[in-house]
This record gives sequence, structure tokens and C-alpha cells, in this order.
Amino acid sequence: MKSNTTVGFVGLGAMGRGSAKTLIDKGFEVAGYDIRAEGVEWMRVNGGRPANTLAELAGQAHIIVSYVVNAEQTESALFGNEGLAHHMKAGAVFISCSTLDPAYVDDLAKRLADLSIQLIDAPVTGGAAGAANGTLTIMGSGQPEPFEQVRPVLEGMSKKVHYLGPAGSGTRMKMINQLLVGANLAAAAEAIGFAKHIGVPLETALDILSSGAADSWMLRSRGPRMVSDHFDQVEGAVDLFVKDLSIVLDAANKTQFRSSMAQCAHQSFLDASKRGDGSKDCGAIVSNYR
Amino acid sequence: MKSNTTVGFVGLGAMGRGSAKTLIDKGFEVAGYDIRAEGVEWMRVNGGRPANTLAELAGQAHIIVSYVVNAEQTESALFGNEGLAHHMKAGAVFISCSTLDPAYVDDLAKRLADLSIQLIDAPVTGGAAGAANGTLTIMGSGQPEPFEQVRPVLEGMSKKVHYLGPAGSGTRMKMINQLLVGANLAAAAEAIGFAKHIGVPLETALDILSSGAADSWMLRSRGPRMVSDHFDQVEGAVDLFVKDLSIVLDAANKTQFRSSMAQCAHQSFLDASKRGDGSKDCGAIVSNYR
Repeated sequence: MKSNTTVGFVGLGAMGRGSAKTLIDKGFEVAGYDIRAEGVEWMRVNGGRPANTLAELAGQAHIIVSYVVNAEQTESALFGNEGLAHHMKAGAVFISCSTLDPAYVDDLAKRLADLSIQLIDAPVTGGAAGAANGTLTIMGSGQPEPFEQVRPVLEGMSKKVHYLGPAGSGTRMKMINQLLVGANLAAAAEAIGFAKHIGVPLETALDILSSGAADSWMLRSRGPRMVSDHFDQVEGAVDLFVKDLSIVLDAANKTQFRSSMAQCAHQSFLDASKRGDGSKDCGAIVSNYR
Repeated sequence: MKSNTTVGFVGLGAMGRGSAKTLIDKGFEVAGYDIRAEGVEWMRVNGGRPANTLAELAGQAHIIVSYVVNAEQTESALFGNEGLAHHMKAGAVFISCSTLDPAYVDDLAKRLADLSIQLIDAPVTGGAAGAANGTLTIMGSGQPEPFEQVRPVLEGMSKKVHYLGPAGSGTRMKMINQLLVGANLAAAAEAIGFAKHIGVPLETALDILSSGAADSWMLRSRGPRMVSDHFDQVEGAVDLFVKDLSIVLDAANKTQFRSSMAQCAHQSFLDASKRGDGSKDCGAIVSNYR
């Protein structure tokens, strides 16, 4: 499947590179900009069109996929000096794949609509590996017409595209997902930490826990690292969860929702970050229990 | 496989009946006592030897499997008026499959040893269905010699027998298991409760959560009930987790372990129980978030 429109990428970290390369390999025309020169160079070397400025990217692509890290970077890429919003043509589509605050996304959709730019709010799950293999799950949302227009791009990047409703719905879904991922991970860390504390044999414990009702994706993924205390293979840093659970707690606060498990998990990631483990793999929160 | 020794059961609720019937079907000689006459009658009807008193059971069986509910019932079955401990012969084995407080089990092992009765501390996981199908996982512990002696019985009841160390190790492992099961369930309830609260489409949410990093055994098992608000099919009541997480918090307190996720989950089960949902299926804690 080949899109007849160039797809521009902004934010060429591991996630952005993975999805861009997946589209290139499927025959899409891809362009890309990154604030770091190495990101732009990566695009040139990997068969896409490098853009040296955001204005240039807006000129090259009618559909722009954003993989920047947070709301601050999204704001800067769109509305900063020479930002995309000043250069994108009427009817262009901005696909945001970042994990953002729902209230910010609601507002962003309105501000872009005022400029006749469509926001497709489409956070992803599946990590860097999912981006590189085109096996992400996409939590898509936005107006139905532009959503169908960019569907081939979303499908090109993923194994499954969900449509959840107006812009903001995808972000809310992603927030729920991160709440549960973070809480399951914090629970796994507490269980393994307690097993260490009271001297339960750890290999056997992990075997029992992951073969029954205590099992979770995060336990299977991070349990072995928690048991062996190795956190250098980073697939989701402690600080990523500090950020994502802050978004959860903020949204819970704004909507008067009692989110005590998320709060408790957030504290666990915060403790690990304060100890200096913020850039280690998220499994490092087990060290809180030493 | 047929044991040459009669296996006695005390506590013929759903779990005890399941394991007793599994052994009977495999050709074991089984006897059974329950404080309720209907339990004794069940044993007679299902091909085992009914025991009308604990003394009678102790006379019939050299190996006794206990599926009573808690420490209080264990204490009563063993040391109460005409309890088992007064009648079991030297060298007899008491297999406790209940979820108990680790400190109580440590003490129990010593008290039984003084009477030349061996304690095999062997909590199980897999629920009533696992007991009925002989597919439990057993967290076994105790002295190696009696453990090997009763291994055919344990294997007859289960799909997998783990040996964890001296009596008390099995109970500690079960406690870790219940910590994680309870916390994963409370996390799933909070995620689904939040999705309801902010209007994320629930069927899609459950599909996304359970197909990625947010997945857990409890989410897959109880998520659909939480979405549809049906909790009449009880496979583990709210009050079971109130009890099991109390054991966790008590042990954490005694060993100076900071168990904040378990504490937070316990509060959730407690809230549901106080609301009157104690005997409903554990998924009913999602109603805390209404």
C-alpha cells in the first residue's frame, strides 16, 4: 500500500524512527525533521527526505506525524518560532502520537481547527520494538473524515487501529492504559520486593506468580530483571512513568476522581527517580524495597 | 496412581470437595469430616468415607488435608475439644492448604512437632475450578521426608507441586501471590472505573488494555464483569481479599516492610465490603469508583 501523500515526521527518537522506517519500507514517501541534527541525518540515510526546518517539513508534507516527547515539545513544534502551525496549509492533518494531558489535547484540537488544521489524536502502545516492526496498537481519535483520510498511514504503522471518538479520546484511552501499566508494574515490584525481604526463593516465586492469577504482562516482562537486579536494558524508563502517572493524577484531580492505586504507584516511581534511577528501566523501582 | 494410605479431609467447602473428588476419581481412599452435616453427607454420596467426628477422621487417616477457611478454624480443628491433634498417631501428617498468617504457621509447625505430627504447609492456587479439575498449583513446604511421603497425594490434587523449604515457606509464597493478585485486581478496577468516569468506550478500552502491556490475568478474568457490572458469579469474594490482604499487611508490619500498594488495594476491598458487597465477586470493587 502506497500513500499518494508525503508523510512528515517530527520527533525522530526511537519511536519516530521506528514508525518512519516502517512506512518507508512499505513504500510511503516520508520526510522528517528533528531538533537534533543527527535525527535529520538519520532520515536522509534511511531513504526519507530530510527537512532542515519545521517550515520546510510543512511544505513537504500534508500529513505530519508527531512523536515529540511531551506537551511542551508539541507546543513548540506547532506554535513556536517558525512552528508548523504557521506553515501548514488549510486541510493539513497533524497526527499526535505523544502521551499528553487530555485537557491540553482538547484545547489543541480547537486551536488547530481555528487554523483549518485537523488534529488526529493517536497515542500508541507497543514500545520502540512495536514501532520498528509496525506492530503498534493505535488509540486513534479525531473527526471521522480526516481520520479516514489518514487511516492508511496509521495502518501502515501498526497492527491494529482503534477509533475512539473525537480528538482527546485517544489520549484519554492512553492515560487509562498507562495507569494500569504503571500500577501493575508497581504491584509486581512490591511482590518481588516482599519475596526478597522474607526470603522466598525468587526463581520459584516468579514461576508461580506468572503461571497463575497473579500474572501480568509487566510481571513477565520486568519480573526477571527485578529478580536479577539488572536494569540497563531500558525499554521504558522510570521517569517515563513519573511523567505519565503525573498526567493521570492531574486528570483525576481535575475530574474529581479518587485514583489511589495510581497515586501509590506514582510515589514508587518518584522515589526511584529521586534516588537517581530515573533513566534506568522502570523495573528499577524494585530497589525501593531494599 | 493409588495411595496405600487413606487421605482424610477436613473442611469440605468448594475447595475441599474439589480436591477430595479429584483424589477419589484417581483411586485414592478418601475420608472426610466437615463441621456441617451436609459436608459429611457429600462425602458419603461421592464415594468417600464419612467421618462424624474429628476423632473418627484421625482414626481413619494417617494423612489429613485441611481446607478450613482460616487460622481460627485450623486451631479449632486441631486443638479444639476432641480436635485432631489429640487423636492423630505419631508420624501422622497434617497438610494445611489454607491461606494463613506466616507467624501462625511457624508456631503451628513447632506445636505439631512436639506431638510428633508433621506439618506440611501447602497453600494452593487455581480456585474451585482448579481443585475440581486437579489443576491446582501447590506451594508446598515442610520437612523433606514427610513431604516426599505425601507427594503422591499433592500430585494427585494438582498439575504442579512446588517445594519451597521448611513449613511456613509455602504460606509466605501464597501471601506474596495474594498481594499481587489483589493489587492487580484493584489496579484493573481503578483503570476501568476511570474509563467509565471520563467516558472512554469500555469494550474498546478492555480490548486495548488486555492486548498490550496493561494486561493481567485478573483484568482478563474480571474486566468483562467490571464493564458489565455483573458480580453474581463468585469465584473469589471481596471478603476473601479483605482477609488475605490483612495477612499481607500484618506480616509486612511485623517484618517492617513498606507495603503501600497492598495497603491501598486492601482499602479498596474494605470499602466495597463496608458498602455491603463483601460476599460478591471481587470484581465488585469497581463500584468504589462510581
